[in-house]
Amino acid sequence: MAEAATRRRGRGGGGAARRAERTAVSVETAKYIERNIPLYEVLDDEALEIIERNAETILEEVGVNFVENPAALDRWREAGADVRGERVHIPRGLARKLCATAPSRFTQHARNPERNVEIGGKTLVCAPIYGPPFVRDMEGGRRYATMADFEKFVKLGYMSKWLHHSGGTVCEPTDIPVNKRHLDMLHAHMTLSDKPYMGSVTDPSRAQDSVEMCEILFGKEFVQDNTVMTSLINVNSPMTFDEVMMGALEVYATNNQACIISPFIVGGAMAPVSVMGTLTQVLAEVMAGIAYSQLIRPGAPVIFGAFVSSIDMNSGAPTFGTPEASQIIYGAGQLARRMGLPFRSGGSLCGSKLPDAQAAYETANTFNAVLLGGVNFMLHSCGWLEGGLVASFEKFVMDADQLGVLHKLAAGIATDENGQAMDAIREVGPGGHYLGCAHTQANFKEAFWRSDVLDYKPFETWHEDGERDTMTLANAKLHQMLNTYQQPALDPAIAEALAAYVAEKKSSMPDAFS
Amino acid sequence: MAEAATRRRGRGGGGAARRAERTAVSVETAKYIERNIPLYEVLDDEALEIIERNAETILEEVGVNFVENPAALDRWREAGADVRGERVHIPRGLARKLCATAPSRFTQHARNPERNVEIGGKTLVCAPIYGPPFVRDMEGGRRYATMADFEKFVKLGYMSKWLHHSGGTVCEPTDIPVNKRHLDMLHAHMTLSDKPYMGSVTDPSRAQDSVEMCEILFGKEFVQDNTVMTSLINVNSPMTFDEVMMGALEVYATNNQACIISPFIVGGAMAPVSVMGTLTQVLAEVMAGIAYSQLIRPGAPVIFGAFVSSIDMNSGAPTFGTPEASQIIYGAGQLARRMGLPFRSGGSLCGSKLPDAQAAYETANTFNAVLLGGVNFMLHSCGWLEGGLVASFEKFVMDADQLGVLHKLAAGIATDENGQAMDAIREVGPGGHYLGCAHTQANFKEAFWRSDVLDYKPFETWHEDGERDTMTLANAKLHQMLNTYQQPALDPAIAEALAAYVAEKKSSMPDAFS
Repeated sequence: MAEAATRRRGRGGGGAARRAERTAVSVETAKYIERNIPLYEVLDDEALEIIERNAETILEEVGVNFVENPAALDRWREAGADVRGERVHIPRGLARKLCATAPSRFTQHARNPERNVEIGGKTLVCAPIYGPPFVRDMEGGRRYATMADFEKFVKLGYMSKWLHHSGGTVCEPTDIPVNKRHLDMLHAHMTLSDKPYMGSVTDPSRAQDSVEMCEILFGKEFVQDNTVMTSLINVNSPMTFDEVMMGALEVYATNNQACIISPFIVGGAMAPVSVMGTLTQVLAEVMAGIAYSQLIRPGAPVIFGAFVSSIDMNSGAPTFGTPEASQIIYGAGQLARRMGLPFRSGGSLCGSKLPDAQAAYETANTFNAVLLGGVNFMLHSCGWLEGGLVASFEKFVMDADQLGVLHKLAAGIATDENGQAMDAIREVGPGGHYLGCAHTQANFKEAFWRSDVLDYKPFETWHEDGERDTMTLANAKLHQMLNTYQQPALDPAIAEALAAYVAEKKSSMPDAFS
Repeated sequence: MAEAATRRRGRGGGGAARRAERTAVSVETAKYIERNIPLYEVLDDEALEIIERNAETILEEVGVNFVENPAALDRWREAGADVRGERVHIPRGLARKLCATAPSRFTQHARNPERNVEIGGKTLVCAPIYGPPFVRDMEGGRRYATMADFEKFVKLGYMSKWLHHSGGTVCEPTDIPVNKRHLDMLHAHMTLSDKPYMGSVTDPSRAQDSVEMCEILFGKEFVQDNTVMTSLINVNSPMTFDEVMMGALEVYATNNQACIISPFIVGGAMAPVSVMGTLTQVLAEVMAGIAYSQLIRPGAPVIFGAFVSSIDMNSGAPTFGTPEASQIIYGAGQLARRMGLPFRSGGSLCGSKLPDAQAAYETANTFNAVLLGGVNFMLHSCGWLEGGLVASFEKFVMDADQLGVLHKLAAGIATDENGQAMDAIREVGPGGHYLGCAHTQANFKEAFWRSDVLDYKPFETWHEDGERDTMTLANAKLHQMLNTYQQPALDPAIAEALAAYVAEKKSSMPDAFS
């Protein structure tokens, strides 16, 4: 990829430096995706207008709850909503009007400016899995996640070429007290990677800590003027905005930091069993949440989020990579674009317990909908297993590799003279072959996307190599990545200040494990 | 699915019949897909016009070879082409004009009229893998295919709900002499299934045998008036039409039987390394082949085929499910639609040696392109492994199950009042849940697509059941399918005549194994 930034580390003077140079790992990260292809639109204008009309009806007639948050109710009342108890009825048109101040696109800065990402318009930014309490790998099986696992995931994310973002709670470090985890997690993202990352949302005070750590890393002034975090604010569907998530949103919006306003829906449980009904509820919820963010600070960057799984009505289990989930991604993308907002959905979603064929079918189905559906921010881009309960090391590597497919597809088809290749066709002629022709020689290196994980060997070689399946190949790859990982350089004064902040904060409060 | 035809067998009188009734298997086959969704168009009109112009340039300036086929050269000369040796130069516009008599859509009849398929327009017909010399399953590993394997695949195809077509050479029965295989294969399709099937193309005389067997099954007159076979005519890319394939095409076109005219291309070897160049060559080849079919019999049913894999330029191995392959499916679909012709591409294509995650990523990538790219006939819909060298029993079952995803996606999104679900949203309200509401109760059975193979169980149950991966689940499923298989009824006189034809033909020639 021409746009990939190549960085080398370990430079310096003398023989040791030269040896380091020879063994230095080239950590290449592709630029975020900018689509040079059309999007897929599953709904016509009439259907979209019905959804928009119905969403306004929900906001006005049914209303949304802002729970244990009197200040939010005051803000809504002042903005012109009809507030009854904790129920906010938003007059037709008001939410959409408030949303209009949200930017259609924003830059999230990374501490390495080459890794800044643009979120909105034609872009797609890929971030890893978020939230699982368990991890799985071939050596250790399924187990509770620890901080050591977390750090390994951050390192793998840093080493993954097609991953643009370090993410947030890549797994829950369950060996760290709940009230201190966010400090260690942010510290890891800031020091073990130089890609952009997410802030804590589990308490408003932790969001404040996240902002303060960013001020150490980027400088106070920079953080006030620029977006350096994109954080995940889930809506308690249906139509409920709880005080914890809203408290975190308030901190981030006040500080001009980005939030994904994201209904979290298991279809048939938290939303109607129909795609149209779910899209309608999603739109109403997102409009209410984004409108609220703009009441906090007009112009605060936000993302239209939609996390929707379907459900197996036999077992009640959420299901992923299903046709209904794809339809929601396509439809919600259209709704977000009509609002001129960046869009978040999708991920390496699957229900499988193992990184097997089921996991891959379901993940690939979602990836395809994400690319053609216009997703701008794909959380859970890699590593998701078991409905999000498990972060899989092998699947992280497998999925991150597949993100390369999306990069190449998004680049579109070159239609210039070289792309047309008429000289090659004339040169080779009927019955010839193209392997040696001039056009092939000039173009073969960039012509075809190539996996760094999957098997392309002849059967005999694959057999002699031990008949390894994808999981086994990914396991070898992840060890290779971790073994060659080198920490990106960071100003020692900043590193020291960050460590001191974390130590001080952690010692200032008792451990809490729930 | 409302359109699924349910059939029961084993009916009759008395207690035995009632017992048979209780244990009878419901063999359900979904109707072929009719898309109620838009297609995805990756190329704009300007690019398409460039390709069309360049393809005409190839036909006129470079020409195509019709090898060892003097009659074909005569036909071309008579039609106005400039024939030099075996090279046919087709003046700009002539091929396209000849193609205009090919129908945009045709019916392929099955012996069970409920299983007739429509090929063209908005339809998608799914047929199984074609051509592999090896098979693989968990019990026997990888081995040469036999007639017993072939019969098992035909039975599995008959039992697969989302598979509309029995296919052709589902695997090569290598234990049967080469010159007699087609008789046993067709006999199996005709007697073990009642779905439509493909004819032999390995020799013109075998195509003729295929027609004669159809005349026994359907009646001579019916076959002359109706299409009862769709057969695969590969082009020897680049731009070469050999006498065997063209001889088979001549037999089928003369008899009004359908042919897929399909360039078989490993990108970078049999076509330029660029997508535009490959599309241009594909279009030129298909136009020449279809034009030739219309010289044989104007109005003969044909399909615009494109089988294109990319290549790993490191190893030379063909690769599948890659971004370039998807781009070709999208682009070739557009070209076929502009010609008003049915389109064939895609399949469960993958390079993996096992039905693992690689196999599923690659297959799902292709399936998504097939659905949105407007493919009308998907050969290799299930069972493909190892670049087409191997037919996998487990993957056959896994892929055939995933075809259900395409059916549901193609149905589109219901936008009526029930789909909008406003009553449900009003009934449940903020903070409620939808599982028990009236709308959910009325709709949950049809609301979400459900796999018959994949695992939706809670972790604990899955663990107690032996932690089975997808391959293991598919293995259990395929045995269940084979164990419950019941042969569809066939008029005993026809069955006898077919068996006699096969026996007579086989005894009339010596065995040939190459």
